[in-house]
Amino acid sequence: MITFSPAYASPSGSPIRELHKYIGLPGMISLAAGYPDSAMFDADGIRSAMGRAYSNYRRCLQYTGTEGLPELRCVLIDLMKRRSVAVEPEQLVVTTGSQQGFDLVMRVLLGPGDAMLVEQPAYPATLQALRLHQAQIIGVPADEQGINTDALENILLQSKGERRLKALYTVPTFSNPTGATLPPERRMALLKLAVKYGFVIIEDDPYSELRFSENVAESLISLAKNVPGAQDYVVHLSSLSKVIAGGLRVGWLVGPEAIVKRCVIAKQTSDLCSSALTQAIAAEYLLSGDMDRHFPKVVESYRSKCSIMAGALDAAFGDRIHFRAPEGGMFIWAACEGIDSSALLERAIEHRVMFVPGNGFYLDSSAVAAFRLSFAGASAEDLSAGVQRLYQAYVSLQAH
Amino acid sequence: MITFSPAYASPSGSPIRELHKYIGLPGMISLAAGYPDSAMFDADGIRSAMGRAYSNYRRCLQYTGTEGLPELRCVLIDLMKRRSVAVEPEQLVVTTGSQQGFDLVMRVLLGPGDAMLVEQPAYPATLQALRLHQAQIIGVPADEQGINTDALENILLQSKGERRLKALYTVPTFSNPTGATLPPERRMALLKLAVKYGFVIIEDDPYSELRFSENVAESLISLAKNVPGAQDYVVHLSSLSKVIAGGLRVGWLVGPEAIVKRCVIAKQTSDLCSSALTQAIAAEYLLSGDMDRHFPKVVESYRSKCSIMAGALDAAFGDRIHFRAPEGGMFIWAACEGIDSSALLERAIEHRVMFVPGNGFYLDSSAVAAFRLSFAGASAEDLSAGVQRLYQAYVSLQAH
Repeated sequence: MITFSPAYASPSGSPIRELHKYIGLPGMISLAAGYPDSAMFDADGIRSAMGRAYSNYRRCLQYTGTEGLPELRCVLIDLMKRRSVAVEPEQLVVTTGSQQGFDLVMRVLLGPGDAMLVEQPAYPATLQALRLHQAQIIGVPADEQGINTDALENILLQSKGERRLKALYTVPTFSNPTGATLPPERRMALLKLAVKYGFVIIEDDPYSELRFSENVAESLISLAKNVPGAQDYVVHLSSLSKVIAGGLRVGWLVGPEAIVKRCVIAKQTSDLCSSALTQAIAAEYLLSGDMDRHFPKVVESYRSKCSIMAGALDAAFGDRIHFRAPEGGMFIWAACEGIDSSALLERAIEHRVMFVPGNGFYLDSSAVAAFRLSFAGASAEDLSAGVQRLYQAYVSLQAH
Repeated sequence: MITFSPAYASPSGSPIRELHKYIGLPGMISLAAGYPDSAMFDADGIRSAMGRAYSNYRRCLQYTGTEGLPELRCVLIDLMKRRSVAVEPEQLVVTTGSQQGFDLVMRVLLGPGDAMLVEQPAYPATLQALRLHQAQIIGVPADEQGINTDALENILLQSKGERRLKALYTVPTFSNPTGATLPPERRMALLKLAVKYGFVIIEDDPYSELRFSENVAESLISLAKNVPGAQDYVVHLSSLSKVIAGGLRVGWLVGPEAIVKRCVIAKQTSDLCSSALTQAIAAEYLLSGDMDRHFPKVVESYRSKCSIMAGALDAAFGDRIHFRAPEGGMFIWAACEGIDSSALLERAIEHRVMFVPGNGFYLDSSAVAAFRLSFAGASAEDLSAGVQRLYQAYVSLQAH
């Protein structure tokens, strides 16, 4: 009989991945997955980048440095500069998607008995990762403007000395699942709290480029330069998965050198290095300017689909549904008062539409009225039809 | 002040990667790295596979299942079948190189205070991974035929009840660093010990296809079917890094379903999934038959270079050096009596040749006379010149 590590004695998979089995049902419309729209991939641009990358095949088929392919590192440092963040080479490591970035920071920071703060609701894979790392997890309430920093300070005051609060996880811009964007004053408050209480902010930033207006929310890592001491406490995770393609598995982590050098060692033991080939393709694509030409079309498509979904929800549900249309990203977080979103999902599957019920985003997974709808993956037609079906499922649930 | 996880409080990198800084020295010949020879990559075959894979770009640029791209999984199950191993789909997970495979098993198996057995000498990245996982590490002596199974049984008898011995790590075929191949009788003894004492054998098998003769060493996972109960205790790690290209980062893990399903969850939290693009390229390449045409040339090149290196060592050192030419793989493990191989490396760098001193392969890193020479990466000319320089370094060390 093999005995497993306590974390893996009886583990369960991600609640989103559990939904996969329904995707194959005939006629199913999925509003569940957080996948980008494969119809919007820049097939020609990426093909060209692949050709250019492969012209140096001896390099891109070989192992490369754990920190990442040098030319991609340069391009990413430049990209961060355009996002108002000055990055020294020692502060950046390329990761196999930003999921790996989060895993590396957890490996490096968490010791036995350490605690992590997580916005609530939060990305389920983050909650699962923390459970598997056996962290004490403390939820921090978030509202339509993201983390409630007053509530956070109360938690910090109460916890002082009791638990070793190592870090806080947040998606401050176009949150998953709520779509919320943290306002500047809360961002500054958060940075000050990190310095005062000595915890690391893990800023997960996969969606900020998918913005539907001119309003740029300055990242926490950029704002940190205005708060004395804060630059020592912000780790920024980013990714090309939502802006180029998830299949490349190219993300990166930026942070204080003391953290990053340890993340490089953790990555060495995790997978030695990310694929030099996909890194070279990403570098060529970013350098070519093709992204600057193509990406506005992706954003326009998501903006339009968000608007279609929001309009369809309003038209079908009227005031039976509550949501705030996001200013970017991929998700609408909606709630129908008095329902259990898991029960709604059961009905919805009968009506051949899927979404992610709200309970998966909470530490306490009791009944939650809210649920996450993704407008990124489905076609415009399917979005409208999906919302119609969702309404029928809602009516059927209410009638029961 | 940030406090880190105990394992990462003051970590050091891999001793092999530490050598990287010398590679750039003008005129340096490296016999150090375990990289495959990039001159032997099948540039045209892989380019064609890339084109075919990309014809379904919407699929290979998207996220894919954590278990791996379905078509690659099928090809790998078929490949294992040709290696005499029947694999059910639930027993295989694609990994981001076999380094990740090892990491996943460690995550899944090791709890606080658990112990791991490791052949000595062993691949340094394994030793480092175990230190970072905070395992108790117990060395098992290996000789020119691999793990000494009698010595192993003594250790097991002595340790009984004291430590929780979870698993044993070994490269039974063309070992890194020694090049040794475990004989069939020791393989059977090892499998019986695993069942008797209830530990998992982690069979790392990156090199077995690089064999210079017709002698096929049957893998532990294949032999396990002949030892009652043993199939529950063998995890097999394999990789395309040494046979196609390391830059694809495609490896796989095969084992009992109870372990594999947990490894899938561990992978979900590690990096969600490996690149669908590189997996699709690997699947297309393996399916095309190009590998069957090209790979014999790679093996012949390594065989020839091994023979050149062995001949050069004999010619230069005569009986001042001891080694056994391997029957496959990438390494010659040599020893010059009475020297400290780290001191030899210092001299060697002055003479512009590099290798990996033996101490990095041992848990107790005191002076070791043996050292690892790789014949895979350098050209035939550089191999001869490198050995000449190594001899000069040896003479200079002796004269001192």
